[in-house]
Amino acid sequence: MIVGTEWLIEAAGCEPEALRDEAAMREVFARVIGDLGLKTIDKGVWHKFPGEGGVTGLVALTESHLACHTYPEYAAATFNLYCCRTRPEWDWEGSLKEILGAKSVSVRKIERGTGEEETGRRGEKEIAVAS
Amino acid sequence: MIVGTEWLIEAAGCEPEALRDEAAMREVFARVIGDLGLKTIDKGVWHKFPGEGGVTGLVALTESHLACHTYPEYAAATFNLYCCRTRPEWDWEGSLKEILGAKSVSVRKIERGTGEEETGRRGEKEIAVAS
Repeated sequence: MIVGTEWLIEAAGCEPEALRDEAAMREVFARVIGDLGLKTIDKGVWHKFPGEGGVTGLVALTESHLACHTYPEYAAATFNLYCCRTRPEWDWEGSLKEILGAKSVSVRKIERGTGEEETGRRGEKEIAVAS
Repeated sequence: MIVGTEWLIEAAGCEPEALRDEAAMREVFARVIGDLGLKTIDKGVWHKFPGEGGVTGLVALTESHLACHTYPEYAAATFNLYCCRTRPEWDWEGSLKEILGAKSVSVRKIERGTGEEETGRRGEKEIAVAS
């Protein structure tokens, strides 16, 4: 039984300053939520780790949840988008290049609710690596 | 660059009443957090969908996050545990059988921060299916 779809996104080669900027991360969330017509349950949890640390964001959606963690020390960010209803694909690559200066973005798509079926990995074309 | 480890857990054949019981879901979180020595950033977000609906829980951790979604109509629950530091394995199978009456529990382990390496799938022994 498949109860939802989860996208796992990894962004590398990002601008460390953007990864320390809660506003930049909120902007990513706002675009995902707006473009896909998702509904937030509340304001979510945002946390900026002190000093050179990164940002954690978690937002509950009526469709499930959206999460991010950033690692300025590695120029990396990860996102999870979990939806219990079918949604169109979102342009993670273009958006994360624009907002975070990401050099490469990969997207994995996993069906939830069953551990027996294979992970649904997106095609090579969609596991985009840009230089 | 691997920045964290995420466990994706799927529980099937659960008691629907337990999946509608926020207290039961909070108990799962409390055990995971206590047993693994995780630290919560805040109280998290808990949402019980109306009527026969399920429960969503999201907690930000200093180590990353813990999430659950339940689907009483399918007797199913899913969990995500994302840790940016190495943690011991937790007994998802035993705990979810006990608390939610799950008939089968599967656990997938995925390395985060790279989309280029293969998903680290746990061994057959650990993708446990009990009847």
